[in-house]
Amino acid sequence: MTTAQGTSASARPPVLVGMLGLGVVGSGVAQTLNEQRERLAEQAGCPVVLHRVVVRDLSKPRTPAVAHGQLTDDTAAVLDDPAIAVVIELMGGEEPALSYIKRALGAGKHVITANKEVMAKHGPELAALAAERGLALHYEASVGGGIPLIAPFRQSLLANRISALHAIINGTTNYMLTRMAKEGVEFSPVLAEAQRLGYAEPDPSYDVEGTDAAFKLAILAGLAFHTRVAPEQVYREGITKLSARDFRYARELGYAIKLLAIAKRANGAVEVRVHPAFIAEDRLLGQVDGVFNAVEVDGDLTGRIMFYGRGAGSLPTTSAVVADLIEVAQALGHGGRPRPAVAGDAGLPIQPMDEVVTRYYARMTLRDQPGVLAQIAQALGDLQISIASVIQKESDSAAQVAEIVLMTHLAREDSMQAALARVRLLPGVVDIGAVIRVED
Amino acid sequence: MTTAQGTSASARPPVLVGMLGLGVVGSGVAQTLNEQRERLAEQAGCPVVLHRVVVRDLSKPRTPAVAHGQLTDDTAAVLDDPAIAVVIELMGGEEPALSYIKRALGAGKHVITANKEVMAKHGPELAALAAERGLALHYEASVGGGIPLIAPFRQSLLANRISALHAIINGTTNYMLTRMAKEGVEFSPVLAEAQRLGYAEPDPSYDVEGTDAAFKLAILAGLAFHTRVAPEQVYREGITKLSARDFRYARELGYAIKLLAIAKRANGAVEVRVHPAFIAEDRLLGQVDGVFNAVEVDGDLTGRIMFYGRGAGSLPTTSAVVADLIEVAQALGHGGRPRPAVAGDAGLPIQPMDEVVTRYYARMTLRDQPGVLAQIAQALGDLQISIASVIQKESDSAAQVAEIVLMTHLAREDSMQAALARVRLLPGVVDIGAVIRVED
Repeated sequence: MTTAQGTSASARPPVLVGMLGLGVVGSGVAQTLNEQRERLAEQAGCPVVLHRVVVRDLSKPRTPAVAHGQLTDDTAAVLDDPAIAVVIELMGGEEPALSYIKRALGAGKHVITANKEVMAKHGPELAALAAERGLALHYEASVGGGIPLIAPFRQSLLANRISALHAIINGTTNYMLTRMAKEGVEFSPVLAEAQRLGYAEPDPSYDVEGTDAAFKLAILAGLAFHTRVAPEQVYREGITKLSARDFRYARELGYAIKLLAIAKRANGAVEVRVHPAFIAEDRLLGQVDGVFNAVEVDGDLTGRIMFYGRGAGSLPTTSAVVADLIEVAQALGHGGRPRPAVAGDAGLPIQPMDEVVTRYYARMTLRDQPGVLAQIAQALGDLQISIASVIQKESDSAAQVAEIVLMTHLAREDSMQAALARVRLLPGVVDIGAVIRVED
Repeated sequence: MTTAQGTSASARPPVLVGMLGLGVVGSGVAQTLNEQRERLAEQAGCPVVLHRVVVRDLSKPRTPAVAHGQLTDDTAAVLDDPAIAVVIELMGGEEPALSYIKRALGAGKHVITANKEVMAKHGPELAALAAERGLALHYEASVGGGIPLIAPFRQSLLANRISALHAIINGTTNYMLTRMAKEGVEFSPVLAEAQRLGYAEPDPSYDVEGTDAAFKLAILAGLAFHTRVAPEQVYREGITKLSARDFRYARELGYAIKLLAIAKRANGAVEVRVHPAFIAEDRLLGQVDGVFNAVEVDGDLTGRIMFYGRGAGSLPTTSAVVADLIEVAQALGHGGRPRPAVAGDAGLPIQPMDEVVTRYYARMTLRDQPGVLAQIAQALGDLQISIASVIQKESDSAAQVAEIVLMTHLAREDSMQAALARVRLLPGVVDIGAVIRVED
């Protein structure tokens, strides 16, 4: 751009930035800040200078995009330098990142972080600290990579009363579920291949058990419902027990199976849960495949909207961090104050999982003898759960067993669990292969 | 919310708002501002008061949400009242809306508008005027109703170099195309029903000829490429010539047909065009059905992202207008300055339509005689256009004609048009039924 504004931008005093961490994302951010100086200055209205980067090991080889003079192993060189106005935290993990963010805020610095664990566990506390001092605390990169999510919740959707949020916010598991659905392969070989491709970590539990999704949901639900959601309040169930046949049956019934992160208003409380779920395959969210993420929001004014894109990776995350930085620099460059953190808390209670009401899909192996189905219907009926449909899928005449799939009407979670406990004890029931919630 | 911040919000001096127009959207906004005062004050950090609403006819019955004392038919009562800090323009149409917006900016007022025609035609001029005076000019509601689009482009995506934008941004036509695709009905009966349901206007040309989409594309392309795009620079082709059989053939080939608004970087220029297009049906954008809108953006950092939701209607538009207002009020309430308009212009040239390169689908009726296809291939080949596939769809032995569908490889628009002119003159060609561009 060659505008009058652009020309004057470089004449303004620069905004100095300190960065903590120079891993994959840090390197992307550093490269963008160092190589796109002119464009960023124009967009920010003033020069934005990466002043110092704290790394643990100065001797480690680094991206050529960062000059050796920018590096330090002394945290104080960033946190205690009054010339640095903005601190970008890209270390990941709870500590020492949390302490450093607090120190930065305490020293009057605006903070940008991509740290979902810190924001999920300590976001409200940090927001209060920042709000008190009129400081910005931006964390667009903590959820959804390059997909604008935090900014829309904090601004564009503010006029809405949000009733529900359904999200696919873990790319690793969505990649795995997509392969299981499209190719009919089982969990273990798909996991092995995801690990080989670098999509899944050697210890995959963080992804496949829903921990990562639960952190992100805690952040999003907190924003959507203006209330405090701790990650341990999020009900969590992973994808390790899903079988390829469930995907086949789901498709026959018109559904996809996704690891959904769900937050919903219900009875004056908020449900927050991460678990595999049936979702109608003609709903756009049900068609989000591969490593892509998507967040669907139901607002009273907007109706249903959805945000879609790559939820992770160096470049998408860099996009979010740099956007946060430009926003802060824009305000500082004009001698103003960046949008400060907001510390509101509507104090909504979290709905216990036992009280969640949903529909269920269950796959069972039964002995091929009369009356078993009636006994199951009875066990469910005793707990006020009615069956919407039953389909016999396969039967093995040699073993004298048959596989059935049943779908329930709406039922409470505690009733369903109690009913399943009874069903499991019925002499005609060999095995309950899968129980998956159905999201409408 | 009951927070310390919330309590103090109502003690701050209020931000007074003047509104021009009280139609469907205006009534929604007025109702929200009058009925949700407390919530808005909390979100804005200060009271936000709808001070005065200018209407043409004071005697017309109005929504009970607006007190009679708030109404006036005197524009000066809003534009010349120094107490009013923010003007919301919801009159629609080019004039007098444009003059009023200029007057408001001239009087030092921040402006929020939902007016796509004014922003498409005069956005850069108005942004310059606002930027000069450090005023906000917000127009989230001008494109995409309740879908956050303008804010993401102006903030979240700023770090990206955007290469392409593909959008479905007219709900009326997308509703019609969806019905044609799903039910196999023709354009005319679908239009008649859309009119009956109130989705299409009595004069439908604004929607079905792509005018509305071209206005919105001019705004979005200007933002995405930081350059000036006038609506008359947007190539425009409507949906009136589409036939139900094209949808059937498209599906057989793995495509949906959508009215796409496309902006792309190509050869140092920007293509801007609105026309029906084949789009792969397994691409998420191809699955956006009914009155819904979606904007897909390819950024160098984010990769492909998409925004989806209702692009029109009183409530979604209200959501966007009120969000813009909260943002302005947040800054004013804290004694700061709202994010001012940006007047950058990269000055990229607009690519003439003749030079656009794309693939084509063509449906033709041929005389059932030997050699016709070879002549067509020759006519195309003479202009360096090669055929990717030809399928004979139907033949009518009584009339001795056959319908064929051909797909080309990439070709320049001017070459394709020249080739089609030659094909049309071939004695074996009865009719060229449809020519539709294919977007990859």
